Amino acid sequence: MGDYVVTDRTRVRRVHQRGRYDRETVHAILDEGLICHLGFAVEGRPFVIPTAHWRDGERVYVHGSSASRTLRSLKAGVDVCLTVTLVDGLVMARSGFHHSMNYRCVMVFGRATLVDDPDEKMAALKTFLDKIAPGRWDEVRPPNDQEFKATTVLALPLEEVSAKVRTGPPVDDEEDYALPVWAGVVPLSLTQGSPEPDPRLAPGTPLPDYLAKP
Amino acid sequence: MGDYVVTDRTRVRRVHQRGRYDRETVHAILDEGLICHLGFAVEGRPFVIPTAHWRDGERVYVHGSSASRTLRSLKAGVDVCLTVTLVDGLVMARSGFHHSMNYRCVMVFGRATLVDDPDEKMAALKTFLDKIAPGRWDEVRPPNDQEFKATTVLALPLEEVSAKVRTGPPVDDEEDYALPVWAGVVPLSLTQGSPEPDPRLAPGTPLPDYLAKP
Repeated sequence: MGDYVVTDRTRVRRVHQRGRYDRETVHAILDEGLICHLGFAVEGRPFVIPTAHWRDGERVYVHGSSASRTLRSLKAGVDVCLTVTLVDGLVMARSGFHHSMNYRCVMVFGRATLVDDPDEKMAALKTFLDKIAPGRWDEVRPPNDQEFKATTVLALPLEEVSAKVRTGPPVDDEEDYALPVWAGVVPLSLTQGSPEPDPRLAPGTPLPDYLAKP
Repeated sequence: MGDYVVTDRTRVRRVHQRGRYDRETVHAILDEGLICHLGFAVEGRPFVIPTAHWRDGERVYVHGSSASRTLRSLKAGVDVCLTVTLVDGLVMARSGFHHSMNYRCVMVFGRATLVDDPDEKMAALKTFLDKIAPGRWDEVRPPNDQEFKATTVLALPLEEVSAKVRTGPPVDDEEDYALPVWAGVVPLSLTQGSPEPDPRLAPGTPLPDYLAKP
């Protein structure tokens, strides 16, 4: 699928061998992550807001209340940095210094634009719910006019973007490998528990297949 | 333990009943989260960097390479926003609109300062490793002079801070409760897998108790 063009902002400098600029890696991280952290400055002061995101092709989307300060700031066209991070493990080394984490992260720089075409906006909301629970959009009550208007959807193009990935065991100093200290990786992953039915669930409503644990 | 003073930046506006300003809630979220997302602006352009953090009393710490652009920007005294988010579940409603997530997040605003007293810096690094793996600091090789100098530790006071928390089942429109759509919460949590020993682990090195799965 090709690589993103590397810019001064996206070039990974610290431990540069962890930098990835290919679309496949970037897309996979964006698609696995449920939330991003969206950064922007208002009068020079930074804000970092956690929010759900989703991707369709070369655009990443966020949404929120049309009344939200954040969404209003963003749709005015301020620069943003959207970061998605997946924590994959604790890297336990033989020295304090070489402890690390395994992770995959993506940073997207740019300006978000309002998705105001109603068809495109509705399609984007369907794509979002399909990411969370494929097939669910067709089962739930669709947005009514008021809900649709109360929701703002913003799109950010995947143009200035990079990923950074750490995998594998610790890298210790050669002379430390002989130390009698346990070293390795403690894997971590965001794991689904047993679905908890709403206390007001209509009797006899089955759990859909897409929510059953794999 | 008392509440943080609410400021214009920390007052939760959207769904304001989710706002929490008590130290107990804020501390618990900061302590459970392994990573934060640190936002700051350089020449007006925002950056959001994932990094490990830890807390000691009313200060939250981050660290990194002394050569890092990020750390050098921060220690110059720029405004930052440090956000920690824990994703607790998918909230599946009967309408598309009322889908949500259960989460706990904390936002800290302020300016980070360099921890340059060597004793204080060493104590902070110990506190960090103790958060990840209590007792491990005493087992691993401590930082040598070169490693200690190559590490920058920054502290951010917990002064301008708030939390936002969503828990519980979906809140649907009254007329939607009768719909034959499964609704409830799909719990999510960051879960530890089986520790993976380093291929070069010294033979006979036991897995420490603090890494065994509960």
